[in-house]
Amino acid sequence: MTDVYTLGEALGVVSSGRVRHESEARLDVCGPEFTTAIGLARLGHSISYLGKVGEDELGTRIVTVLRGEGVDVSDVRMDPSASTGLVLRESRLGRPARAVHYRTDSAGSRLAPGNVPIDRIAASRLLHVSGVTVALGWDARDAVETAIGAARTAGVPVSVSVDYVSSLWGSVREAEEMLGELACSSQVLFVGQDELDLVKPALLPEREVIVTRGAKGASVRSEGVRYDAPAFSVPVVDPFGAREAFVAGYLSALLEGLTPGERLSRGAYVAGLAVTSPSDWQALPSRTDLP
Amino acid sequence: MTDVYTLGEALGVVSSGRVRHESEARLDVCGPEFTTAIGLARLGHSISYLGKVGEDELGTRIVTVLRGEGVDVSDVRMDPSASTGLVLRESRLGRPARAVHYRTDSAGSRLAPGNVPIDRIAASRLLHVSGVTVALGWDARDAVETAIGAARTAGVPVSVSVDYVSSLWGSVREAEEMLGELACSSQVLFVGQDELDLVKPALLPEREVIVTRGAKGASVRSEGVRYDAPAFSVPVVDPFGAREAFVAGYLSALLEGLTPGERLSRGAYVAGLAVTSPSDWQALPSRTDLP
Amino acid sequence: MTDVYTLGEALGVVSSGRVRHESEARLDVCGPEFTTAIGLARLGHSISYLGKVGEDELGTRIVTVLRGEGVDVSDVRMDPSASTGLVLRESRLGRPARAVHYRTDSAGSRLAPGNVPIDRIAASRLLHVSGVTVALGWDARDAVETAIGAARTAGVPVSVSVDYVSSLWGSVREAEEMLGELACSSQVLFVGQDELDLVKPALLPEREVIVTRGAKGASVRSEGVRYDAPAFSVPVVDPFGAREAFVAGYLSALLEGLTPGERLSRGAYVAGLAVTSPSDWQALPSRTDLP
Amino acid sequence: MTDVYTLGEALGVVSSGRVRHESEARLDVCGPEFTTAIGLARLGHSISYLGKVGEDELGTRIVTVLRGEGVDVSDVRMDPSASTGLVLRESRLGRPARAVHYRTDSAGSRLAPGNVPIDRIAASRLLHVSGVTVALGWDARDAVETAIGAARTAGVPVSVSVDYVSSLWGSVREAEEMLGELACSSQVLFVGQDELDLVKPALLPEREVIVTRGAKGASVRSEGVRYDAPAFSVPVVDPFGAREAFVAGYLSALLEGLTPGERLSRGAYVAGLAVTSPSDWQALPSRTDLP
Amino acid sequence: MTDVYTLGEALGVVSSGRVRHESEARLDVCGPEFTTAIGLARLGHSISYLGKVGEDELGTRIVTVLRGEGVDVSDVRMDPSASTGLVLRESRLGRPARAVHYRTDSAGSRLAPGNVPIDRIAASRLLHVSGVTVALGWDARDAVETAIGAARTAGVPVSVSVDYVSSLWGSVREAEEMLGELACSSQVLFVGQDELDLVKPALLPEREVIVTRGAKGASVRSEGVRYDAPAFSVPVVDPFGAREAFVAGYLSALLEGLTPGERLSRGAYVAGLAVTSPSDWQALPSRTDLP
Amino acid sequence: MTDVYTLGEALGVVSSGRVRHESEARLDVCGPEFTTAIGLARLGHSISYLGKVGEDELGTRIVTVLRGEGVDVSDVRMDPSASTGLVLRESRLGRPARAVHYRTDSAGSRLAPGNVPIDRIAASRLLHVSGVTVALGWDARDAVETAIGAARTAGVPVSVSVDYVSSLWGSVREAEEMLGELACSSQVLFVGQDELDLVKPALLPEREVIVTRGAKGASVRSEGVRYDAPAFSVPVVDPFGAREAFVAGYLSALLEGLTPGERLSRGAYVAGLAVTSPSDWQALPSRTDLP
Repeated sequence: MTDVYTLGEALGVVSSGRVRHESEARLDVCGPEFTTAIGLARLGHSISYLGKVGEDELGTRIVTVLRGEGVDVSDVRMDPSASTGLVLRESRLGRPARAVHYRTDSAGSRLAPGNVPIDRIAASRLLHVSGVTVALGWDARDAVETAIGAARTAGVPVSVSVDYVSSLWGSVREAEEMLGELACSSQVLFVGQDELDLVKPALLPEREVIVTRGAKGASVRSEGVRYDAPAFSVPVVDPFGAREAFVAGYLSALLEGLTPGERLSRGAYVAGLAVTSPSDWQALPSRTDLP
Repeated sequence: MTDVYTLGEALGVVSSGRVRHESEARLDVCGPEFTTAIGLARLGHSISYLGKVGEDELGTRIVTVLRGEGVDVSDVRMDPSASTGLVLRESRLGRPARAVHYRTDSAGSRLAPGNVPIDRIAASRLLHVSGVTVALGWDARDAVETAIGAARTAGVPVSVSVDYVSSLWGSVREAEEMLGELACSSQVLFVGQDELDLVKPALLPEREVIVTRGAKGASVRSEGVRYDAPAFSVPVVDPFGAREAFVAGYLSALLEGLTPGERLSRGAYVAGLAVTSPSDWQALPSRTDLP
Repeated sequence: MTDVYTLGEALGVVSSGRVRHESEARLDVCGPEFTTAIGLARLGHSISYLGKVGEDELGTRIVTVLRGEGVDVSDVRMDPSASTGLVLRESRLGRPARAVHYRTDSAGSRLAPGNVPIDRIAASRLLHVSGVTVALGWDARDAVETAIGAARTAGVPVSVSVDYVSSLWGSVREAEEMLGELACSSQVLFVGQDELDLVKPALLPEREVIVTRGAKGASVRSEGVRYDAPAFSVPVVDPFGAREAFVAGYLSALLEGLTPGERLSRGAYVAGLAVTSPSDWQALPSRTDLP
Repeated sequence: MTDVYTLGEALGVVSSGRVRHESEARLDVCGPEFTTAIGLARLGHSISYLGKVGEDELGTRIVTVLRGEGVDVSDVRMDPSASTGLVLRESRLGRPARAVHYRTDSAGSRLAPGNVPIDRIAASRLLHVSGVTVALGWDARDAVETAIGAARTAGVPVSVSVDYVSSLWGSVREAEEMLGELACSSQVLFVGQDELDLVKPALLPEREVIVTRGAKGASVRSEGVRYDAPAFSVPVVDPFGAREAFVAGYLSALLEGLTPGERLSRGAYVAGLAVTSPSDWQALPSRTDLP
Repeated sequence: MTDVYTLGEALGVVSSGRVRHESEARLDVCGPEFTTAIGLARLGHSISYLGKVGEDELGTRIVTVLRGEGVDVSDVRMDPSASTGLVLRESRLGRPARAVHYRTDSAGSRLAPGNVPIDRIAASRLLHVSGVTVALGWDARDAVETAIGAARTAGVPVSVSVDYVSSLWGSVREAEEMLGELACSSQVLFVGQDELDLVKPALLPEREVIVTRGAKGASVRSEGVRYDAPAFSVPVVDPFGAREAFVAGYLSALLEGLTPGERLSRGAYVAGLAVTSPSDWQALPSRTDLP
Repeated sequence: MTDVYTLGEALGVVSSGRVRHESEARLDVCGPEFTTAIGLARLGHSISYLGKVGEDELGTRIVTVLRGEGVDVSDVRMDPSASTGLVLRESRLGRPARAVHYRTDSAGSRLAPGNVPIDRIAASRLLHVSGVTVALGWDARDAVETAIGAARTAGVPVSVSVDYVSSLWGSVREAEEMLGELACSSQVLFVGQDELDLVKPALLPEREVIVTRGAKGASVRSEGVRYDAPAFSVPVVDPFGAREAFVAGYLSALLEGLTPGERLSRGAYVAGLAVTSPSDWQALPSRTDLP
């Protein structure tokens, strides 16, 4: 039995300083569910990842990294007719980071309902999806819906991370509609402070809603009580990956039956370590790194 | 009066060793006409470049580099609604280099007939285009056609570089048709040994056809006589940019009224220096570097 | 019409950690007016730069960078008989940075009155010079004087940045005399807190005197009122270039008719971004980066 | 007793690819006699070096390296009133390397007769000087003369390496005169194939004249017989330092009483290893590296 | 069923230029059987690796890499009481590479008979071991013996690579005895030209003996006929890993029933690609890279 | 006469970020007494170092660095039968640094009583040893004892730095016994706050006991009065080497007869600068760097 089943797009990522001048860049792979999957695997959970990659070296890298970390990749598909997507990230001190997505018609965005293994999701303890996937096009959206349907039917709880990336959406209204619907199908909902407006209808007491506030920490309301945890204080080398790492830490503690406060703490700790590396996932802690 | 007018797409380029393992990459900008333009400017010619870039840092970098090198960029347009395209190149010793293009709906591919300044082309000594542009979509294809029409009307000779990039074409047949037509509208035609079949109808005696053979040199048939020049022998750091550099050297000598043999030699020399750098354009020689 | 005309020496700069041990260094170009010119150009102003460089690759680099950034370099001269100067900078955490200047008889120090285009200065909105140039020798000093004379005759206001570099002066007394005289010919005067004693005679109420205090911010007295602005708080990667960037931001706001407080704020912001990069000029903000 | 006494200028050296574009450079120290001294010390000979450096980090680096390698630096002087000189070297594949010297009035060029310890030279087995030093100005020239005078008086043989660096000389005629005179005062003379014309009067049978031809090897005429040795075949990473390394190898074999052929072979071997590193001196072989 | 079962020590490896001067090094993991295992896995074979690593980050890295590449690591043991071994390699152009082993009492050397799963070896198509393992001490030697015994009992053929590393042996005589015995227990024997003397008793016609000669290619005698293959000609970035890669290529072809000539060719090709990277294993070809 | 005589093991050190992922590492040399020796030499004291290194490039590097810094290395021995030891250090932001020692049977650990020059120690003003050396085995322990005996006999005061490295000891009890005994033989004792329990018997009023507390500063009790000094506040690039640098600064001030407060201050200053570099020793201040 798999602890967590997740699906989404993984991509190549090129990171640099100011793109206008830099000749050195960092090449890695990333993806919201990719990072969460590795985070959970490192903490000792069994996890399966579903996604499509191109039959190219970026695709091979994604599969190799996941498999190396112990994530079950038997459902990953390699698409010979599309390339693995790419993100170009720019970090400038004193200015917000920027990302340009090169994923139009990427292999990852072609994930479709037919790729979703109903039985394997039904045999998992938790399904985790993010709002990025529903922004990738109709196929991917349907795939998420299919997965959620499978989970609901089998009584598997659904965890959703809102992950609103404005450049992937045609309009805020469209995002609001889709993300709101997605959020409403969750039992556990991760939402950024600045995303609250997008998923208003889902902010109900019966749902476990975790609100993340970056350096200001995170909170959760559980059975009518609000719990808070500060961010884990470390130097930030690269902020990307924090949210996904937080999700991994939180879900890990949830799976182990820890208290809401402990869930937040573990989320904060894992997120704190994640940002100490230029990679989204390489600084994720092992089980033995937990305090 | 401009010596050479050219148009096409310029992009960001990320180069690395084996993508599966590398974490270090090189970030630069490139483009066939971009490289040829800089090559000509460095050799002392006045040159205008037309293209569309995104309103992003890659776009700014392209414009800044061209302007810095003395290329006239007053016709370049920044498109606020599209990103500058990107290419991911992989170099492996002992294996052919590979490139994945991320330019679907890029700013550069949106160049359209309406962007082409008829009068400025008419006031040039030469128009240069490449076969890459006609592979980018209908708009770009029409823009090239408009430019060639303007040249023909004004009696400005047209230089064409075939530049067949298979991954940009739906089928070989489509490439054959479009590139053949393009080649037939040229007075000066640069074609690789392995591209000869694609532009058969254009291989007529009345056209100046330069055939490039990589390390095996190049030849041209001019007024019934065949001239040959060997490649310039230097260590190859990165093969990309050689063809475009060759074109720059050849056209430079043509503009100066040098003999066919001298044109080939200058082409070979400029191409030889171009590949001594990981950048397509940074090793291009200055006027004072010419032998 | 040019917004700002400036003149001075631009040089190569080699930066490293402790010179005793480092084998890696950074190669770039710099210069007080060079940096201010780029800062103004990026903020959308038209600016002309006058200077002499050697006919070498450093000289070409200086011209290429300026032209790429949109600075008018038509007055720049390449001197075939002298090399472009060089500065070796050493940065050690916990110890003050050090710089050794290799500019004795450099091309830049040979700027002479005969190189100064009276008419172009007369057609500018502002002339900007720094105290470094008057330290470079009699020729350069006379060139500055000629430029200031041209401005005064044409009613063009003069901006002076004191920029006292002790190693370039024979004695403090000599610096005091020359810099004091220079400062007295300005309408706008930028002076560091620790340079106030050098230009005492110029510290009069009728002059716009901006006092910079590094991390402690800056102030200006305008029409009897003192305005203050804090420094923009960002991590300092390399402190060089801050002063010149501040001047660019301040003059930009002045040219746009903003209030003294706004001038200081823009100066502080531009200076703050400038020090986030190891380069003096590459982190200078674009117009769209302004808050 | 010292095996070899040598004197000259050591400097900082910044090496990069094309200066126009490179942002990465290598920082090291160098100098013809500096390199020869280390080469001899590594082969087990006792060697003393005389020179002046600035009281700066480059000067400290020079002394530290020499002392670390076992060269006697007790005669080195630190000059508080001058900076250690600097050389900027550019390497471009397919183009000759270039060097710009920043040593006008450097500490090293201030070496004067008063710094030359007559007794210590008299107590050496060999004195070695290069033609670079006599190009540095009257003081340095006189210092060399003083040293040679001391050697002659004491019957210590003099080794001279011509080392003609055109940019350090006012005219070829001046170089010819000075270098010819210097060469005539030697018992062992190292001269490049392309320098033969400069020292014609010194090319007499009674002198041990070693002619170096780069990749084509070297030869020596000894007691009427000509000996030849090919260059040691290795990939050339950076050609600088080869000549000085050759001198070290040759003199080492000479001091050990080996045959002319063996002297050439050792010179070639040491020179061959020297160019396998970007540093002039770091790849010099140890005694145990000798074949 | 596993195609190939292998066992041995994997270690960390630090590679640098001349250790005396270099401050930059490369950190990776390596091991003869480790490399062969990855080589086989990349070519599509199922392979199991047995070894002991420390409970440290090097140990985790070894397991992660193997698992990522699809090697079955279920038999790998993490030893909490010992560290993963380390090798320091020095590469100098023009001089032979050197390696210092830090593996005294390493986790890998503690592999013991009790760790060897008889049944899993019996269920494999081939067992592969190297002579390095028998040099690591009595425990490791016994483990190899146990494995070979299991293979013999089950009729599984044994492949041995002699891999003589002099610094791991007390004396040549000891190596001769142990390696000779090991070689005699093989059906397929890989031996370097310079190792032939060590395993003389094993050089019998009934055994498939492959002799590797580095750049001079390899040969095998099969059923009385000698087959030869040249080395695959590519630039050598780092020679380490070539032998192990050759073994992987050869065994791959053997498992597929290819001819002796084809086995050699594939071995040569895989070895040729392996040395194009500073890593022993990262340049190993994928199935699709095969010609 | 030597100011300070010291003995111990110097090693190679490889430093990297997370070992699991990093491919880049830093190669340097280190050692507690090695660092203290250089720190003292840079501050102008004469110092002799005794230790054993292998006849390898790491050993040569250790000797070269020490000699270059002016440390007397005439007592250093090169052992042809053992390798210089190595340490692998891992630094992760947000996690404590880790070090794995590869020094079993290293050359340095073979230092034996027979290597200790009684007369040279007797002719020194101070003997300094650390607790690391007594952890290296019986030979090294006896060597320390011999040195201390020689000092005591000659009336030379003994300085001891506890330097407890848990992984080098079989058990805490063993460390307690040996380190306690060592501490009791000292006149000046450096002990970390967290090491106080290990050397309880030595914490007597008649001994000069300096307690270091990392970022919290240090204190000393001298003639009944307690003195305190804060840590010198600088960014910490790499914490290794701080303790040894502190010892160098403190002993330097002690040798100059400064007050306890001044000794602490100098210790703190030297330690503060030491951690601003990735190297243990390269950032150590020169005499002229002292405030």
